[in-house]
Order: sequence, then C-alpha cells, then structure tokens
Amino acid sequence: MTLIVQKYGGSSVADPDKIKNVAKRVIESRKKGYRVVVVVSALGNATDELIKLAHMMASRPSERELDVLISTGEQISSALLAMAIQELGYDAISFTGVQVGIVTDSLHTKAKILKIGGRRIEKALGEDKICIVAGFQGVDVNEDITTLGRGGSDITAVALAAVLGAQVCEIYTDVEGVYTADPRVVPDARKIDLLSYEEMFELASAGARVLESRSVEFAQKYQVPIHVRSSFSNKEGTRVMGEMSDLERVVVSGVTSQTDEAKVSVLKVPDKPGIAAKLFGAIAAEGIVVDMIIQNISEGGTTDVSFTVLQGDLSKTMEVSERIASEIGAEGVSADEDIAKVSIVGVGMRTHSGVAAKMFEVLAGEDINIEMISTSEIKVSCIIRQEDVECAVVALHRAFGLGG
Amino acid sequence: MTLIVQKYGGSSVADPDKIKNVAKRVIESRKKGYRVVVVVSALGNATDELIKLAHMMASRPSERELDVLISTGEQISSALLAMAIQELGYDAISFTGVQVGIVTDSLHTKAKILKIGGRRIEKALGEDKICIVAGFQGVDVNEDITTLGRGGSDITAVALAAVLGAQVCEIYTDVEGVYTADPRVVPDARKIDLLSYEEMFELASAGARVLESRSVEFAQKYQVPIHVRSSFSNKEGTRVMGEMSDLERVVVSGVTSQTDEAKVSVLKVPDKPGIAAKLFGAIAAEGIVVDMIIQNISEGGTTDVSFTVLQGDLSKTMEVSERIASEIGAEGVSADEDIAKVSIVGVGMRTHSGVAAKMFEVLAGEDINIEMISTSEIKVSCIIRQEDVECAVVALHRAFGLGG
Repeated sequence: MTLIVQKYGGSSVADPDKIKNVAKRVIESRKKGYRVVVVVSALGNATDELIKLAHMMASRPSERELDVLISTGEQISSALLAMAIQELGYDAISFTGVQVGIVTDSLHTKAKILKIGGRRIEKALGEDKICIVAGFQGVDVNEDITTLGRGGSDITAVALAAVLGAQVCEIYTDVEGVYTADPRVVPDARKIDLLSYEEMFELASAGARVLESRSVEFAQKYQVPIHVRSSFSNKEGTRVMGEMSDLERVVVSGVTSQTDEAKVSVLKVPDKPGIAAKLFGAIAAEGIVVDMIIQNISEGGTTDVSFTVLQGDLSKTMEVSERIASEIGAEGVSADEDIAKVSIVGVGMRTHSGVAAKMFEVLAGEDINIEMISTSEIKVSCIIRQEDVECAVVALHRAFGLGG
Repeated sequence: MTLIVQKYGGSSVADPDKIKNVAKRVIESRKKGYRVVVVVSALGNATDELIKLAHMMASRPSERELDVLISTGEQISSALLAMAIQELGYDAISFTGVQVGIVTDSLHTKAKILKIGGRRIEKALGEDKICIVAGFQGVDVNEDITTLGRGGSDITAVALAAVLGAQVCEIYTDVEGVYTADPRVVPDARKIDLLSYEEMFELASAGARVLESRSVEFAQKYQVPIHVRSSFSNKEGTRVMGEMSDLERVVVSGVTSQTDEAKVSVLKVPDKPGIAAKLFGAIAAEGIVVDMIIQNISEGGTTDVSFTVLQGDLSKTMEVSERIASEIGAEGVSADEDIAKVSIVGVGMRTHSGVAAKMFEVLAGEDINIEMISTSEIKVSCIIRQEDVECAVVALHRAFGLGG
C-alpha cells in the first residue's frame, strides 16, 4: 500500500473542532487506500505560551529545560488527534520523538536529526494503524529531549517521508500554497503551482513562512516530493519537486521579505588574517546561524564587519561578539533591529543576466537605500530599512510581472 | 550526604510565583546540606484541563492516548521548577518518568510501578545537582507512557525515596498535615502529629485527601518515613512512620468521609458457586478497584450483590456488570451515586472493643440509616446517604472526643 506523510501546522490544530477536521481529512486519505503517517505541530500558539511561562521562571531559561517544556505541545496535539481519529472508528496511535527513535545531536532548541529508527512506526503501519507523530522533537544520545527549532515539524515530516519511502509529503497549512508574494502585502499575488527544490529553498530562506528551508534541503537530498496545501480546502496547492522539465522557466517566481533579522556590526576590526574565522567560529559554536555577511574595504589597517542574525539570537550574538571584539582589539559592536530583507527568487536567473541590476533599479526608483546585498545562483537579497519593506515588495512584484 | 525526597502537589505549583516559592524551599534544604530529589505534580488543575480536552475529542478516549496527554502536565512543571532553581544560582535538572527509568505495568491511567532504574538520578546527585522528577508517570516495557492514577505523584516520591534510600519523604501540600477530620466540615478538627502507616493507610483509603493509600502502602513496605506538611509555612506537619512506641494510643485518630464512590447492585443473582468470582474477576480485569462488597442472604435461590467503585469507573463498571449479569442470568444492574462513606480510624481499636457499636449508635442518634458496613482491624466504614455525610462526620468527631 502506498504511504503518504501529512503534516498539519499549529493553525490547522488550533482548537478541538479543527483537530476533528484534521481527523476527517486523515481518514479521507486512509479511505482512498493510503497508509498515513501524520505529523502534528502544537495547538495554535501553545508553544509561545510555554515559552512565555519559561521566561516568567528565568531571564534566560536553560535550553535543555526549554526543550523538556516545549516538546509537550506536540505531545498533546498528537494524543488529541489520535483520540479524534479513534472516535471516528479508525485505529490510530500517537508517538513521541523518543518513541519514533528520532535521534538528534544535543544542540537544544535547534537540534539536527542524526537518524530515525522508525521501527515502531513500521510495525504500527503493518498493523493497519494510522500513525500520529509529535513533530518538532527528538532525543539525543543521553536520552535528553531535544527540539528541532523553527519549522521543526516540517523537518520531522520530510525526514519521516524520506525514511519510510512515502510517495509524497503533504504540508497542510492555513494558506493554499506558496505565493508570488505575501497576499497581505500584495493583493494580486498568485499561488505558485510548481517549484523546484532550489527555488523553494531560497524562498523559504528568504522569509516565505510556509515552509522552513531546512526541511526543503532535506526533501531535496532525499528527493521527497512536497505538496504544500490548505487544511481547510481540497484545492491543489504548490508542488515542490526535483524534475522541472515541464516547468515554464520564469525568471523570478516570487518576492519575499523578512523582518525578523538584526544587523550586527563589529567596528574597526584590525585587518589581519584569521580574525573573521575567530568571530564567526565563536558565533557558530553557540549554534547561531549567520545569514548575510559584509566586510567593508579596509581603511587605515582596520575594517568594519557587519552580519545579520535572527533577532531571537541577538542578545547571545552580542555577548559573543563583544567578547571576541575585545580579544581581537576591535573598537566595539553595534546592533540594529530596524532592518528588513527583501529577496527575489527564480531558477530563470541562471540563464537571464541583469536580474540583480533590475532589482537595484526598482528599489532606487522607490528611493529605497540598499545596506547589504547577497546573491546566490537563483536569488538576490537586499537589506533595507524596515519601514521601506512593504513598498519594496509591491514594487518588485509589479516590476517582475508576477501579478495575477 | 543525606538525601531527602520532597513532593510538591498541584496547589503548591499552581502558578509561576508558587513555583518560585517552591524553588526557594528546595534551595533552603540544599543549603542545610541535604541532597534533594523533588517530585512535582502538574500545575494546579492542568490535568483536569487536559482531561476536559480529551473528552472534547472522544466520548471515551483511549487510555493509552490519555496517558500520553496528561503526562505532559508533570513534564511542564518539572521543567519550570528546574528553570526557577537554576535562576537562583543552583544546578538543577528535570527528568521525565522515562528518563528516571520508572518502569510500570501496562494498565494505562492506573499503572503500577514494577521497578525504578534511578541510574540517571544517582549520577546527577553525584554531580551535586538538584533533581526534579515529573511525578505520576512511568513507561511500560513497550516504551509507552503510563500514568499511576490518583495520588500518582505521591507514589513516585515514596518509591524514589525507597530506591534512593532517602532519610525522609516530605509531602508538601496546601494544608498543614493530616487532620482529625476535614476542617471545612468540623471547625475544631486538630492536626495529628504522628500516625502509624496502618492508620495513615486507612485514613487515606477512607477519603483523607492529603495522601494516597497506595503511596502509604509503599512507604510501609520499604519503611520510608513520611512527613506531610504545608508548602506555605515552616510548621511541623504530620509524621507517618512504623515505630509507634512513643505514640499515645488513641482509640480513634480521625474521621473521614468520601463522596466520590457509587454503589452498584447486581439484582437477583442465581446463588451458585463461582458467580462472585466471575463478576469481580471481570471487573478487576478492567483495572477497576472495588471498595466495599456486600451480598444479601439468599432468598428463593437468588441473592443481591452490591459493591462500591469510584464514580469515575462507574460507566465501565456498569458495562462489565451488565454483560456478566446477562451471562449469569441475573435480573439486572442498578447504580446509585448519591451515597457517601464515613469512616473512623485508629490503632487503639485493636485493643478497645465496642468502637464499631458506638459508631452505629452515634449515627442512629442522628437518624442516619446505614446501608453498608465494612470493617478492618483499625477502621470502621459505613455507607450512608450523601446528604447525611457532614452531619455524620461532625457527630462522630464529637462523640470520639477528637476536638481541639
């Protein structure tokens, strides 16, 4: 029997009625003859509520204990969904990350999956049970509970789909797929029917909130077809896959923006070899992901190094950067949270030149100053002032002809 | 270093401020030079809220899934308490039932502890950490999460105290100890300073809500001294222990009542050997504990069998009883939830005769009808109408001279 993995996000299981709705959808797939493994996120904003509780206990709660705490969110929704499915007369069983054997490294709150046992799931599937897996969580070699960080439930779903050889990994969410831009900002934004892994990866990295980039990476590595769709309708969503021969090679497939990064600048760094390695090595050792990096041209033996990190990592980043700055004899460290990143993504960029130049021109035309630039084969990102971000997205969406 | 185990109930960790208060108390013991293992219940009424959610999902939620669901309550409080202790500068670590190696049977929602590993706790204690254990939960041989039923956190605490060789198991609660009667019903009820395990066991079985009978049984078996006390004061509470030589042998040490039982009657049961075994065997197979049993004198070849169970077990009990009733050719089954049990407990009963007779006399004097009677060496219990229960407790408390 063909296996599909379905993942339901927090908005799809926000309350008892929505969980019952998910139960019905799962059973529909079962009735069509599929074996089904379901991965669930925590109910609505349950995770945020738990994090709020943690911060009432401690100014910087231990990350090991944070994982013990927040992993309960998915455990709760997995049990509730199993009950709802059973109530409709189908056999279902819930599993925690430990029970599934999702072994991760020990980097609490942002752990990486090392391997998945899957023995219990395979056994339960063999007994014709619908398997419900608590997303977002795993266990390290010490038997400590870990969580996978942002988009962790997506990663659980894709990884399970890969290990179990699922035909497709369906990601259910509260929108109908991936859009050419955020429809709340750009009213004529269109749903995209088909994306390559690379495009989806870049869109996700650049702020498309519908899917997390690590899960796309995983899907590409194991060639797991993804279908991003709405849990509230039966419409076809956005399919993400490797083979793109049929795809019309649009130059730009989407515009995204991100306002959750902060810019950190280490000022007047002595321009000597090994300095950057020392700084970014220390930051990486804390498990902090650095997005964009620029280093200005050296003046009088010193240089300014700027980079962006998630705002949530800012205080830790400042701590590390200030320590390293004083070790290496830099003048100081400054932080700026009022920035935004706007990006355009498209596989067509590979064969079309001048796309970046056109982007800069459009932003200039709106009088928007560009503070940092980063490019990949199929993406161009610019850091701008946060107040300019909506104007930039609308202008780029129009300029690249993405409207409906 | 001497080890103590402390257990904090739901009312002691009902909100963030109370958890911080518990953190301070734990640290006080640490400062006195003790090694401390703390067992916590779920926050306030968190467990009830989760059970309510479950019943919104299914009319009779699967007990395996119920355990997955409600075990999160203690996991949350253990992580929060660990954070609060760390915030005050002490090293603490939380453990789930799985991590502690609390292995139980597979009787979900009322599992029994088979063995406790304790390896991780011993290691952490050796590293001078304060260990916080999520109470009420364990894991069966299939790695499924189980819960220990009512008073489960007390059982976790006493069992850990036994395994780890603790000097004392302190049970922190919202009252100052065990009382001669419920102070809300009997204003001049007194706190009892010292109780034997047997007395505490009978008081707990008979409705003293402060400690669960199974945990007292466990404490007696392993001779773990218990100290029931308030988490909001430093006053000496009630000590429960085996050696009672110093204890003034009062005839009756306390009066308790219970209104959470229901009476089930199987009517016109053919009076043949093996019938009772069949009925109560089937009920026990469902993990339902039967409290009192009476069988009337046989008339015309049939007899009525009445027994009491917890109201929470009533629907399941009715199901089983009706099935067995039809199998054995009984006339039918009736249920009555408007009953109450009133009990007197005291080690002095062993050597004083006439205590039961005096109890019946007191109830008769209040015009209260006795429907069922059960006695042990140190306890007499009567089932009466629920509306008479407060009157009965007040009258018995006065008649046996328990007032302050």
